[in-house]
Amino acid sequence: MDAETPALLRSFRDDFRWDGVVLSPYKEDGAAPFRAISRQELFKQPDLACELRYFEMAPGGYSTLERHEHAHAVMILRGEGHCLLGRSVRPVRAHDLIAIPSWTWHQFRATRGVPLGFLCMVNRDRDRPQLPAEQDLAEFRKDPALAAFLDGTPPAA
Amino acid sequence: MDAETPALLRSFRDDFRWDGVVLSPYKEDGAAPFRAISRQELFKQPDLACELRYFEMAPGGYSTLERHEHAHAVMILRGEGHCLLGRSVRPVRAHDLIAIPSWTWHQFRATRGVPLGFLCMVNRDRDRPQLPAEQDLAEFRKDPALAAFLDGTPPAA
Repeated sequence: MDAETPALLRSFRDDFRWDGVVLSPYKEDGAAPFRAISRQELFKQPDLACELRYFEMAPGGYSTLERHEHAHAVMILRGEGHCLLGRSVRPVRAHDLIAIPSWTWHQFRATRGVPLGFLCMVNRDRDRPQLPAEQDLAEFRKDPALAAFLDGTPPAA
Repeated sequence: MDAETPALLRSFRDDFRWDGVVLSPYKEDGAAPFRAISRQELFKQPDLACELRYFEMAPGGYSTLERHEHAHAVMILRGEGHCLLGRSVRPVRAHDLIAIPSWTWHQFRATRGVPLGFLCMVNRDRDRPQLPAEQDLAEFRKDPALAAFLDGTPPAA
């Protein structure tokens, strides 16, 4: 009556790990800057056109500052911190939703002394990220709010 | 330097609502059986090949028992309850992951006196669900565990 394929339930464990889900390095390639961040691929399968990943930063950790053609759909799942979106720095906390449009600079930082974990939905077929050039970073740093974010010291609220 | 499109942050509010996200009926078509369940479309946009939706049942509520060709990727986000997956009944709680393969019967029920809310990732392009025939339901009810689930009284553990 129903499919032969066994349905799959993976239970949540303590500390934002799941049964049968491997804790992976954030990126295979260490050329891009990041700190104290891990990746878990929660759903990645041929019959789904997107993947769902869980990224988590320890306090003080951050994802790579990057942009790309593909969009991201993010839900914060744990803790709080800040994110850079284009030219704006925003505080984020558990369950907030962040839509990252095509070619928008973005970075997440665990700035609040607690871990910051988020779900990220992304197309399986996608382009590679671009990193900011020195000139881009210099441009960012002209804005005090962005400079404070990049130094890991954004305002609390 | 970055895209013109404004980046979008939608803040989490109390009781699993989000700023700017509409609370929708579970289904447009009331022909399929369901009870005390709502839908919020968290991400649905042309540049993402999947949608991310949040469904929530009040205590005693349930989603439609159905199957279809497309797969679902589910994360429980709130509370606890039970789900039917193929021919098995499983207790589920916050942050558990459930992969629902193609053509697998499935239903969620808020059986534990608390709301049951879950995220569901699904391809934007997908087929319509099929409902069980009377004969399918009679077949289910031959299994005491499935019968108890369908009556809203599955075992606690």
